Amino acid sequence: MLNSTFNVMNKIWVITLFPQFFDAFKSSGVIGKFLENEVEFETLYLGDFSPKSFKGVDSSPYGGGPGMVLRADVLEEAIKHILKTEKISKDELEIIYTSPRGTVFNNDNAKDLASSFQENRKQYVFICGRYEGIDERFIEQYVTRIYSLGDYVLSGGELAVMTITDAMLRFLPKALGNDQSAICDSFEDGLIEGPVYTRPSNFNGVKVPSVLTEGNHKLIDEFNQNKKLEFTKKYRPDLYKTYMRNKV
Amino acid sequence: MLNSTFNVMNKIWVITLFPQFFDAFKSSGVIGKFLENEVEFETLYLGDFSPKSFKGVDSSPYGGGPGMVLRADVLEEAIKHILKTEKISKDELEIIYTSPRGTVFNNDNAKDLASSFQENRKQYVFICGRYEGIDERFIEQYVTRIYSLGDYVLSGGELAVMTITDAMLRFLPKALGNDQSAICDSFEDGLIEGPVYTRPSNFNGVKVPSVLTEGNHKLIDEFNQNKKLEFTKKYRPDLYKTYMRNKV
Repeated sequence: MLNSTFNVMNKIWVITLFPQFFDAFKSSGVIGKFLENEVEFETLYLGDFSPKSFKGVDSSPYGGGPGMVLRADVLEEAIKHILKTEKISKDELEIIYTSPRGTVFNNDNAKDLASSFQENRKQYVFICGRYEGIDERFIEQYVTRIYSLGDYVLSGGELAVMTITDAMLRFLPKALGNDQSAICDSFEDGLIEGPVYTRPSNFNGVKVPSVLTEGNHKLIDEFNQNKKLEFTKKYRPDLYKTYMRNKV
Repeated sequence: MLNSTFNVMNKIWVITLFPQFFDAFKSSGVIGKFLENEVEFETLYLGDFSPKSFKGVDSSPYGGGPGMVLRADVLEEAIKHILKTEKISKDELEIIYTSPRGTVFNNDNAKDLASSFQENRKQYVFICGRYEGIDERFIEQYVTRIYSLGDYVLSGGELAVMTITDAMLRFLPKALGNDQSAICDSFEDGLIEGPVYTRPSNFNGVKVPSVLTEGNHKLIDEFNQNKKLEFTKKYRPDLYKTYMRNKV
């Protein structure tokens, strides 16, 4: 959770062939509410930026091979539209693309994106790839950050863009219903979260650990901390090793 | 790409508080078309499974702390609905949850999920977490696989579930427009993809590499392979190391 106040002048743009993917994201749940009330989030349909000389946004790859490639000139038109609309220069945009070649996205990247955004240094533009990808020359000339969600391939960038945006926005003030949530989440202290329990106290014969119902907050904190250590050691030995090393 | 034919009796279920997240996913792009035509994909709204004795799907965590926890008994009702509707037993379900504690999801997991699905061994049920998570006892008693998308936290499981489903479905026959795409994608041969280019041949003064326009397929293949190696070495030295070791 960042501490200073949030600058509402900021804006997130998404360039996509499927704006409808973002409909629910922009309006549902805690992040949807935040986008409705606090952050401008605008999707641009790439098809609106086809040059007059031809219809469409893609062409076959040079050199052959399956699928289609999104054209650099069409993507450039969408960027020019943003620059003109906002009366800003290219330097004031952070243009973010997702690809397996990118930095493997993690909690620190999410926090870093949120922090830059909050300081209102740049407007963010996310490019959603489709098909075989986008023309390399657009990446070279425009893209400023590339992230990879993980070692798998998706049929389009929309899910990756929503995932990155969601992970990032959570670190902005007012995004979550309570200020504690982001701080208590996994990775914030180098550990993953332990188990959580709620009513009913007996579920198919299994009771909630009694310490959690007895109201001794010191013992509850100990229990929770031990569980975090136990879960991290068991499920993410890599994180556990780093945690123990940093602790000493 | 898997080789045998696809069994249309299979089904994917999603249990979620926000079914609207899946509207575009179920109907847009190559995966949307596939879900409309080839795979049954049904979202269940968790709110429909609140017991009559109370309204809602969540309660405060035992032991205190911020946020809410999804109740095990409500989730169980949704599972019972699936079992009753399909006239199957719990053993015939693969119940998949996403959490930072899970196996870090990758291309091999996607292929493995696709392969099991195609062999029609199980119906898949994805549980979308929200708030502080779901009651641990539901995980212990019902969940059969846990995946993590990466080392970051999301405000809900919906994006993670769509991401996993997208990555998995791509490996099923007929999911992609052409049989070559999945095979040529990143990670399939242990390398990430190189650059792609399309028209215009000159973009802001930068021309497409001439080898790609000269029609010598041997040279084009060499160029593409060298670029894959170059990109992998540059951007993903970890993958490159593994690739070179396996090659020898």
